[in-house]
Amino acid sequence: MLISELETPAVIIDLDVMEQNLSRMADYCRSQNIKLRPHTKSHKIPELAKRQIDSGATGITVAKIGEAEVMLNAGIKDILIAYPIVGAEKARRLAGIAERAGITVSLDSAEAALTISAATSEQGTNVGILVEQDVGFGRCGLANEVELLTLAQKVSSLPGLEFKGLMFFPGQFVVGPEQRAALRIRVNELLDRTLEAFARAGLPLSTVSGGSTPTAYESGLFHGVNEVRPGMYIFNDRNMVGVGAALMKHCALSVVVTVVSNSVSGRAIIDGGSKTFSSDRYLAGDGRGFGILKEDLAVELEHLSEEHGHLNIQHADRGYRVGDRLTVIPNHVCSTVNMHDEIYGVRGEHVESVWQVAGRGKVR
Amino acid sequence: MLISELETPAVIIDLDVMEQNLSRMADYCRSQNIKLRPHTKSHKIPELAKRQIDSGATGITVAKIGEAEVMLNAGIKDILIAYPIVGAEKARRLAGIAERAGITVSLDSAEAALTISAATSEQGTNVGILVEQDVGFGRCGLANEVELLTLAQKVSSLPGLEFKGLMFFPGQFVVGPEQRAALRIRVNELLDRTLEAFARAGLPLSTVSGGSTPTAYESGLFHGVNEVRPGMYIFNDRNMVGVGAALMKHCALSVVVTVVSNSVSGRAIIDGGSKTFSSDRYLAGDGRGFGILKEDLAVELEHLSEEHGHLNIQHADRGYRVGDRLTVIPNHVCSTVNMHDEIYGVRGEHVESVWQVAGRGKVR
Repeated sequence: MLISELETPAVIIDLDVMEQNLSRMADYCRSQNIKLRPHTKSHKIPELAKRQIDSGATGITVAKIGEAEVMLNAGIKDILIAYPIVGAEKARRLAGIAERAGITVSLDSAEAALTISAATSEQGTNVGILVEQDVGFGRCGLANEVELLTLAQKVSSLPGLEFKGLMFFPGQFVVGPEQRAALRIRVNELLDRTLEAFARAGLPLSTVSGGSTPTAYESGLFHGVNEVRPGMYIFNDRNMVGVGAALMKHCALSVVVTVVSNSVSGRAIIDGGSKTFSSDRYLAGDGRGFGILKEDLAVELEHLSEEHGHLNIQHADRGYRVGDRLTVIPNHVCSTVNMHDEIYGVRGEHVESVWQVAGRGKVR
Repeated sequence: MLISELETPAVIIDLDVMEQNLSRMADYCRSQNIKLRPHTKSHKIPELAKRQIDSGATGITVAKIGEAEVMLNAGIKDILIAYPIVGAEKARRLAGIAERAGITVSLDSAEAALTISAATSEQGTNVGILVEQDVGFGRCGLANEVELLTLAQKVSSLPGLEFKGLMFFPGQFVVGPEQRAALRIRVNELLDRTLEAFARAGLPLSTVSGGSTPTAYESGLFHGVNEVRPGMYIFNDRNMVGVGAALMKHCALSVVVTVVSNSVSGRAIIDGGSKTFSSDRYLAGDGRGFGILKEDLAVELEHLSEEHGHLNIQHADRGYRVGDRLTVIPNHVCSTVNMHDEIYGVRGEHVESVWQVAGRGKVR
């Protein structure tokens, strides 16, 4: 089948670009002796998780137990759930999947640790634990080495838990290498205090898990880090280009759309809106727009209704007729993929693979 | 099952409130002698479409052929696809479903009309057509009565098409009754010219389809309108309250979430983010925030990661512990429902129904 035969809107992945993205990251991690544990939230597709493992990843990361179940059912055996598991029912499910694979969970509270320990003890299973440190993003994670050590010691004392180390997420918004370097200096000051406190206490950190796509190629410069969890690097997107973490040629994912109306002056309407692209905003520059039109950079995807994309063609280099097929690189690949039941792997003009987004909708 | 037993995040519908919303709109439309054709994009659930029909709707509206197929397979026989169908393959699918139900489509181009006519003629079926007028929203629709009449005459001349009338969507952003009245005056001026031109040409408009949830209870004041297509009224949301189109007590949909972390000072993190609520912005006021916390109006759902909701609890009236269950009314119900595989109908504390969001992901 040809791309031109796909009904629109259709999410396509340029396989050549994706494969280059996978190798480049795996090569970098190998060169730094850092384990690569990609966050599969960006694609939610077991076949692609396996491609990541084949290219050098030692395991994967997910956010929800439901996503872990999908990956486990597809045969993936080493999974980090980088998300606090809270509540007795979730802990029971977690203990259940821990029978079938190596499962590690991050957490930042004694409540989460106690609930998981109760469930794993009862089911006779074992879950690895990373304690999470906040390095300034202000989402999850404990603030300092004293709290981290207290929680780690608690975890070490509980049955059914194996304390494995530290996790952090430098998710602060930074653009370009200078801002990333400044962020890294602040993060390293915090990490240094934690590493020292754990060494002093004689509690080994076998894993120090850091990283995100924007900081991934500088992972070797974060102190103590021996594992990273980038997600978006497999596809990249407008945001990654905008913050200087990727180039346009690294963007593997795009959405093929069709012009369905051009009757309003200065506008062309495409058959994808917020239910195709998500309404995630552009993080860089002036924050405007929802994607880049590959065929004409002078055109802005200015506004999204649920099923309509509003192209502003006032400064367009070409005409837009009803039926024209166009290609959009979206702001955020993770949210875009999550809108679709299946996506297509393409090489040149040919559709080579159809993948079900099996982890989609696994919010629990 | 009790609500308190649902794993989170879980979308729940207060059935008492939903039923009141359904009756109130049906009663209003009956009182005005206006047909009610609800837009099912807001729920995408055949069982709820049937509830709408049982409460007085004469048919339903959808945006995509895939949604029409889901509703048709569930036995719904009168469907308006309020979206231009463009492309030979989509036209073929459209002609196919027209064998099994009464299908009407809106369009604003001769290209769309010709493609559909070719497909329906070939398959020996028939599709109703509404020509779309832009009444200032600037999305789809022809600008004036001359263009509308030209297209309507073209449609009337083509085999396999039945010209039925006019459609418009007053989707402009307006807040409160004064702004809605001003909008209505502008729209009525445009409608008057169209109605007069069609009357003069002797081309009857058996359907004039207008309306949206914000303007729905003023539908009788739009000139010539004999059908409306509100969607959100079944559930309502923070946006509908914000623009003065509903009250908090009319909000039937909320999302039950759990606090998964409170380790960052001034923050509580819940287990739903942009993949639970969507990242649709608040349309009114200062545009800030992604939902209302029912338990504490002083708390803002300030930021969304993909799977984390960031509550700002600096001005909170209560403490937030890991494991606490909370209830959020989201900005936009249509986008929220679209994130979930199933949602729950509840009465009091009891879960009465589990509905699959069968139209979810039907982007084509």
